Amino acid sequence: MKLHLLLAALLLSLNCAAQERVERWGRFELTLHATPGNNPFDTELTATFTGPNTTYTVRGFYDGGNTFRVRFMPTSEGEWRYATHSPLPALNDKKGHFTCTPPTAGNHGPVGTDGLYAFRYADGTRYYPMGTTAYNWMHEPDSLVARTVQSMAQARFNKLRMLFFVQNFDPAHPEPARFPYEIKKITTDANGKRVYEWDYTRFNPDYFTHVEECIDRLAAIGVEADLILFHPYDEGRWGFDRMPVEARHRFLRYATARLAAFRNVWWSLANEYDFMRTLTVDDWNGFARTVVQNDPYRHLCSIHSHTAKYYAYWLPEFTHASVQDQAPVEGFGRAATVRNIYRKPVVFDEVCYEGNMDNRWGSLSGEEFVYRMWQGLIAGTYVGHGECYMVEGPNDYSHDFLAVGGTFQGEAWRRIGFTLDILNALPHSLQLADSSWDTQTSTAGDGYYLIYLGKEVPDAWTFELPVKNAGYGRLREGMRFRVEVIDTWNMTVTPCPVTFETGAPVRDRIFDRLHRSVPLPSQPYLLLRITAAE
Amino acid sequence: MKLHLLLAALLLSLNCAAQERVERWGRFELTLHATPGNNPFDTELTATFTGPNTTYTVRGFYDGGNTFRVRFMPTSEGEWRYATHSPLPALNDKKGHFTCTPPTAGNHGPVGTDGLYAFRYADGTRYYPMGTTAYNWMHEPDSLVARTVQSMAQARFNKLRMLFFVQNFDPAHPEPARFPYEIKKITTDANGKRVYEWDYTRFNPDYFTHVEECIDRLAAIGVEADLILFHPYDEGRWGFDRMPVEARHRFLRYATARLAAFRNVWWSLANEYDFMRTLTVDDWNGFARTVVQNDPYRHLCSIHSHTAKYYAYWLPEFTHASVQDQAPVEGFGRAATVRNIYRKPVVFDEVCYEGNMDNRWGSLSGEEFVYRMWQGLIAGTYVGHGECYMVEGPNDYSHDFLAVGGTFQGEAWRRIGFTLDILNALPHSLQLADSSWDTQTSTAGDGYYLIYLGKEVPDAWTFELPVKNAGYGRLREGMRFRVEVIDTWNMTVTPCPVTFETGAPVRDRIFDRLHRSVPLPSQPYLLLRITAAE
Repeated sequence: MKLHLLLAALLLSLNCAAQERVERWGRFELTLHATPGNNPFDTELTATFTGPNTTYTVRGFYDGGNTFRVRFMPTSEGEWRYATHSPLPALNDKKGHFTCTPPTAGNHGPVGTDGLYAFRYADGTRYYPMGTTAYNWMHEPDSLVARTVQSMAQARFNKLRMLFFVQNFDPAHPEPARFPYEIKKITTDANGKRVYEWDYTRFNPDYFTHVEECIDRLAAIGVEADLILFHPYDEGRWGFDRMPVEARHRFLRYATARLAAFRNVWWSLANEYDFMRTLTVDDWNGFARTVVQNDPYRHLCSIHSHTAKYYAYWLPEFTHASVQDQAPVEGFGRAATVRNIYRKPVVFDEVCYEGNMDNRWGSLSGEEFVYRMWQGLIAGTYVGHGECYMVEGPNDYSHDFLAVGGTFQGEAWRRIGFTLDILNALPHSLQLADSSWDTQTSTAGDGYYLIYLGKEVPDAWTFELPVKNAGYGRLREGMRFRVEVIDTWNMTVTPCPVTFETGAPVRDRIFDRLHRSVPLPSQPYLLLRITAAE
Repeated sequence: MKLHLLLAALLLSLNCAAQERVERWGRFELTLHATPGNNPFDTELTATFTGPNTTYTVRGFYDGGNTFRVRFMPTSEGEWRYATHSPLPALNDKKGHFTCTPPTAGNHGPVGTDGLYAFRYADGTRYYPMGTTAYNWMHEPDSLVARTVQSMAQARFNKLRMLFFVQNFDPAHPEPARFPYEIKKITTDANGKRVYEWDYTRFNPDYFTHVEECIDRLAAIGVEADLILFHPYDEGRWGFDRMPVEARHRFLRYATARLAAFRNVWWSLANEYDFMRTLTVDDWNGFARTVVQNDPYRHLCSIHSHTAKYYAYWLPEFTHASVQDQAPVEGFGRAATVRNIYRKPVVFDEVCYEGNMDNRWGSLSGEEFVYRMWQGLIAGTYVGHGECYMVEGPNDYSHDFLAVGGTFQGEAWRRIGFTLDILNALPHSLQLADSSWDTQTSTAGDGYYLIYLGKEVPDAWTFELPVKNAGYGRLREGMRFRVEVIDTWNMTVTPCPVTFETGAPVRDRIFDRLHRSVPLPSQPYLLLRITAAE
């Protein structure tokens, strides 16, 4: 027997196994063994973790066989002690300790909100969500899963919207390899259609383990897993869209017990929640409360609805707005209104998708998506990507990244890294410098502006800024600026050799004292980066 | 002694006087006499009114001298009985009854909300707010007050935003004839400036009586009094903007006791609340609760803030949003987003003003205002008017309707009646037919559309509608429509002789089967009214 197998056998023979060292925002896992009772998923098990200045109580979970686990994400470095609590003696009063070490490279901790409108990793690094969507990537064959991860890394996306429950996007698509519940029975109806009967009180730990591995693979490439907990896209195939309310709460308790310790998890209560007609808004608010009450780390949490059906994101359970609506990013300044109302970060997670589908939501050009993204960004909001190209005919979903992941087919994804570089260079997150009066000039602090020209194709831009600069210092005479012309589509940055100098303000605007201009290449989708000159 | 003087003397000699008959939504007033105590404004006095199926408890108030009053607005026809309650024996247990008769012509009752997004008078008549602003009209000389009322009636405005506390819009403007509080003393500071010291525990009933007469004059011409309770425009002249929090609650209790029985009162907690820097949002929410708790009829209630600073209008105290922001009405479809978020009626009470002021908020053309109004209307929201013309030089406020009322100087006001006629003819209130997908087509029900062309100047409009018609029936092949071309600026309505007939839907749009067009006059600000043909 090789040494590592021996070690594994040794660990298994003990009642309890866990790490001695865990990096900050890494995952501590305590494995316990007990003979399961009637429904081991109903076993009560919690653990209290006490570290430097903090105590957390987290729920454990049954993981199949005679295995129970408790997972924990330590939030500060130093010594942590823990003790378990359970009516089951074999799971009760298990005590131990571990050392939380500094995070390793690439681990910035979970993303949280930063002030009213921005996001930040727990280590202080600013986070600009640049997400895309691959609803079912986790439920596809391994080779496709691997390709999706590769594509995400290549494009430098840092967030992925994904469905926990498999979607019936194509009735001809094969059944998934796993289901999240035990099957009570499978029958066939009068039309020969397969009918599943699920045991909503018994989960399939293998399904969760697979989801967890996928989430970890995203963490390894710096991608946040925007995990959509419920969705309506079932159309009678498996019936998960008609799960009873109590089964949903049970699911949320189990899912949070397993997943909350993953630092890159975001909770999205639903996609198009309003299409699940049997559920009320009160039900959804209840689901949100269950998630938040069972997530000691308070991961980002939102809910997504149908086009222009806005949710009450002001409720305390929701950390940000996750909006489906293209209207606010189709023109200048509109997205700022949404932000001004909610006073929370606004992510337009769906503004229609790049693709060639025969419908109005999946047929944007890459240019139009990048345009909408910048309309959202300059207004201090964030815009999510998605693409759906049908390759071999209108119902060939095999290359549809939106549905299955895989390899990007379009054009917008190639601009994500370039966009991120522009954002990461900002001293502060963006907002309109003079909201409602100037819808094109975005400020990132004192002496740092982005002006987006969108679809306008002027020959030149005459230097002009608003005197008001959001909450930063107002502009005065004698300030010097440099201008770079950024082509957001062709990904070029061209500095203008002139150093501009402001004259006296004219009411609410300020101009170069010689009214000089920046020549422009007569292309759409230009962005001017204006920064203070020495 | 003439008969009516004799009667008056007789009434005064009694301890208690009141009407025997009051029309529905009219005002019952019970007058009581008692020797005032230390501070009679602190006297507790309530009355319970019991009518058909309803009981109201309302607060009475001290009205100077030895007079106390209780006011009540009966909400249903029939017999009402009342009884007073007070620790002061002379005010306690006064009982009586009166008959509530049908409302007289022009009395539609108070305006309330109707469904999520609309307004309706209590008698069921739909109400489209077409308001303007005259902040200080009540605080100006009588002749100007009379002219304001005349102008409102002539223009057919049906709402007026007005300040309860006089505004210091021009330091050179004379002191008002009355103040709402007793003056403790007047001193002069080192700069020779007059310094008032107010007794915030003692109101000046004459001030309130004058405000009430003004509100009644508006009621007589069918105008809602959008009464702004607090404002920041004092700049050290009288100090009302720095009134302590408890004094404000005391004021609100007294003001609601006097004014809630006026059917045309709307409560606006503040204008630009956020400019009163010493008050917190919690303070404002507390003021709103005080108003609502002391208003048994639940008049419309909102609060107004600075440009693009949106309030938490989702709180239950607020019946609608009263927004200052021009951005959502400067282009197509934007206002719908605000409505979609709040899910309450949205009134853009300030979208900049028509005028010739040397600033950016008071220098719109009449055309631009009417354009913004229609952008709001077609999106299912409402837009308030204001005008500020300086006539004899930049600081001549004498004709500034916004400040003092009087006579309109501009052009937009002439379009108000015409606009109201278009709105009153609608079968249902407006909303975008296919929100976020078609930002120009507004529906008012099955077979009734308004399409606004804004600043576009096409030669012709080719018949085209979205298949989706909000919550009404989807469009199908073979439906027949007539089209009228409405020039919203020149106030003309030109029917097109063609009867259009829909072909088969093309994805989400439907066209005339012969692709026929309506010729247009190459003018901006056109509105197409499309109605089902027999």
